Amino acid sequence: PPKLSTLQPGLENKDAPSWLEEPIRHVVKSQQFNQEALDHVFKVAREMELVRPGTDESRQLQGAIMSTLFYEPSTRTRLSFESAMARLGGTILTTESAAEFSSAAKGETLEDTIRTVEGYADLVVLRHFQAGSAEKAASAASIPIINAGDGPGQHPTQALLDVYTIQREIGRLDNFRIGLIGDLANGRTVRSLAYVLSMYPGVKMYFVAPDVCRMKDDIKSYLSSVGVDWEEVDDLAQVAADVDVLYQTRIQKERFQDRPDDYEKAKGKYIINAETMKQMKKDAIVLHPLPRVDEIHPEVDSDPRAAYFRQARNGLYVRMALLKLCLENRPLAH
Amino acid sequence: PPKLSTLQPGLENKDAPSWLEEPIRHVVKSQQFNQEALDHVFKVAREMELVRPGTDESRQLQGAIMSTLFYEPSTRTRLSFESAMARLGGTILTTESAAEFSSAAKGETLEDTIRTVEGYADLVVLRHFQAGSAEKAASAASIPIINAGDGPGQHPTQALLDVYTIQREIGRLDNFRIGLIGDLANGRTVRSLAYVLSMYPGVKMYFVAPDVCRMKDDIKSYLSSVGVDWEEVDDLAQVAADVDVLYQTRIQKERFQDRPDDYEKAKGKYIINAETMKQMKKDAIVLHPLPRVDEIHPEVDSDPRAAYFRQARNGLYVRMALLKLCLENRPLAH
Amino acid sequence: PPKLSTLQPGLENKDAPSWLEEPIRHVVKSQQFNQEALDHVFKVAREMELVRPGTDESRQLQGAIMSTLFYEPSTRTRLSFESAMARLGGTILTTESAAEFSSAAKGETLEDTIRTVEGYADLVVLRHFQAGSAEKAASAASIPIINAGDGPGQHPTQALLDVYTIQREIGRLDNFRIGLIGDLANGRTVRSLAYVLSMYPGVKMYFVAPDVCRMKDDIKSYLSSVGVDWEEVDDLAQVAADVDVLYQTRIQKERFQDRPDDYEKAKGKYIINAETMKQMKKDAIVLHPLPRVDEIHPEVDSDPRAAYFRQARNGLYVRMALLKLCLENRPLAH
Repeated sequence: PPKLSTLQPGLENKDAPSWLEEPIRHVVKSQQFNQEALDHVFKVAREMELVRPGTDESRQLQGAIMSTLFYEPSTRTRLSFESAMARLGGTILTTESAAEFSSAAKGETLEDTIRTVEGYADLVVLRHFQAGSAEKAASAASIPIINAGDGPGQHPTQALLDVYTIQREIGRLDNFRIGLIGDLANGRTVRSLAYVLSMYPGVKMYFVAPDVCRMKDDIKSYLSSVGVDWEEVDDLAQVAADVDVLYQTRIQKERFQDRPDDYEKAKGKYIINAETMKQMKKDAIVLHPLPRVDEIHPEVDSDPRAAYFRQARNGLYVRMALLKLCLENRPLAH
Repeated sequence: PPKLSTLQPGLENKDAPSWLEEPIRHVVKSQQFNQEALDHVFKVAREMELVRPGTDESRQLQGAIMSTLFYEPSTRTRLSFESAMARLGGTILTTESAAEFSSAAKGETLEDTIRTVEGYADLVVLRHFQAGSAEKAASAASIPIINAGDGPGQHPTQALLDVYTIQREIGRLDNFRIGLIGDLANGRTVRSLAYVLSMYPGVKMYFVAPDVCRMKDDIKSYLSSVGVDWEEVDDLAQVAADVDVLYQTRIQKERFQDRPDDYEKAKGKYIINAETMKQMKKDAIVLHPLPRVDEIHPEVDSDPRAAYFRQARNGLYVRMALLKLCLENRPLAH
Repeated sequence: PPKLSTLQPGLENKDAPSWLEEPIRHVVKSQQFNQEALDHVFKVAREMELVRPGTDESRQLQGAIMSTLFYEPSTRTRLSFESAMARLGGTILTTESAAEFSSAAKGETLEDTIRTVEGYADLVVLRHFQAGSAEKAASAASIPIINAGDGPGQHPTQALLDVYTIQREIGRLDNFRIGLIGDLANGRTVRSLAYVLSMYPGVKMYFVAPDVCRMKDDIKSYLSSVGVDWEEVDDLAQVAADVDVLYQTRIQKERFQDRPDDYEKAKGKYIINAETMKQMKKDAIVLHPLPRVDEIHPEVDSDPRAAYFRQARNGLYVRMALLKLCLENRPLAH
């Protein structure tokens, strides 16, 4: 297993703040978080699980204003951030469809939009259809920007909530086995997850994917270069029996637009059902970033090891933690 | 007039909670409310009329989070629910156009969406284009679901506010005469209203509709079976002179897509204007679920008996009452 | 320079309230504000700059509900109003795309919509695509209506924030020189600004516009009739050197739909860049209503005289002031 000291130079964002002394500046990509930073975020997320309505803790962001600026719809992610802000007493300015943002249509740059919106809010949660948008916005902004997904680029809060869920469910982030299933070629989620988990020692990864959706070479080379033990396997049953975490993903139809046959073949290949659950260990868990279509049979939902709705819920706590860390010790802009 | 005891078996939802002991679980359809339940909702709605900003009463849902999940736009209904929640101090997560909910587009079931959203909110107000959606959502949910209209299905809060308005305006729900006018064939509103009013003794119903929009046989048979006195009449003037409540509805153009001539004929047939008001009793009222087009002339608006904007306003109080009843004595989900 | 006494009869709205005694009834058009009224709004706006989260001042509109009813998207303006309301402790009911307002689609009049919404809110901020809509809404409403732009009609809060910014930046509203640049023919903004500034003595106006976008005769005649000193100039450099305020506007592509060549020619003619800044006086400023495309080069942004983002920010304070003035001393509608 890779040593942390070997890993850090490649993973760490050189410009990242010293986590224990300063608030987070922006949340732009999962690589900005080193192990120490993740530990700190997760510690705060645990505290967030205990925040109850009516208490002082539930008012700790009172007076702060968050603008959710979504250039493409993602109701799930937007509601999760808005709920997180609400539970800490902050105020929400919501924008469901900024793609029709008249200014953007008129040719305004994202930087100009951000410079305007920062006059109205203390923090922006940005969802955009173009990779790199969050970084561009952050470079222009005097207030924190949280990336809620920028097209084929990054979706760092998803990666963080995935890792947080593993820690919460199996009690550790090192020395465990995980199977990543489904569309490993195109899935932003699994790529980020593999990347983040490579920071922890003793993580064995199995990749189980239809031929057309195999994990790409860049990640595989990277994992090898940092000493992560990974393996491509065809047999889901064998992997199910061996792992602590089975991470299923959806085969995305929109990736196969000109190859409907490939889609149908790929889609049906690896389904998690009651049979799969029988093969799994008693204390292993099934995760999924959701939405789920057919790749996990509903009969699995009632199994206590089906952790995907708890995983969605954990997104709330991780986002509460990030909002707190971005806004605390920071003068509000008004 | 039908006896309450005869009526209840057919009307009552067997699974309905005992109203005076427990909070409401879900608000799915108007049939779930028996007379006792309606009495209780209306009693609370009256209290809601007295809630003033800045008082403890205006903070009774502080800390609770409501998500308005609208799969089709209905700004009027959405604003009414959101205003109701705001007046009780609760927090609102709004979704104007969940039809573009990316998860739904990707094939996620409504049940999965609800299971995710219940991690973010304490109550969901659902508007959907498919009949039965609210019931489906409620069956999956661990938090209360309020049906804000499910396509051709139910819109129970509209039925409740109609009945509440009659009680508020004429002082009773039994022994009165009502004329239902307009599109009685397709109008979800009038069908529900006739159904709910059939619970009360001594309600005489007149149906005044163009030929193509007559009240359907299922409701007429039901009313007869429970002993309600109803009559189809062609002459609006005659009905106007006799009733305590004139309930006008819009002839919906969208129901006549392939028959524009039928629409034009039906639309112009029964208009309420100053002339109609002269025929009406001094203490009778005019109701309309709104939006209104030509079927009530604007000259009627200034008549004190024109109660339709007060009726819209009553929607606020009824929805405040339902939010309170659904959320009180219930641990918030976070 | 025109005397105030000469100006007032033409400018003043006869029905305008006596500003120092009553709350504002509606904000419909910039002409409703005389000099005394503007002074009062700006005085309150200055106080608004000092409102800090957590103070009593930040809760002065607690309990009040504002509905932003936007029939066309304008995220910038909507967020500005919503942020203003949030900073005063009020509650926001948001509607991003009321154009799909189902009631409007069904043929409901704007007056009926307003009469319904006023049951749910204490104030409506209306954005509409038709000139005159705000006035129409105000005539039907029992609660204050603020016009956030009605198509080619008025956008009074933009005019007010422009004037407020000039006062804040150069310290006075009389005896200064301003250059209005760009699309002076179609720009609602510059037309209103010229109109409002004509109330103040000693304002010299230069109009710098491509041939196809010259200031129209109605405004020029009006300015002459009230004794304002104005001049059309072709040379931006000459004007830049002379003025205290350079007000740049975007050439709107949508105005040249059938004449793309004219657009290209007009667009490139007057650009503000580092060179222009060298010509300007040390304490002069550059304004722009935003969004900006190419007409101000980004290299200008870091110049302290570039005041356009501060101008956008001032919109917040002016809108806070208007919300306060509309709602104070007014019983909330619930």
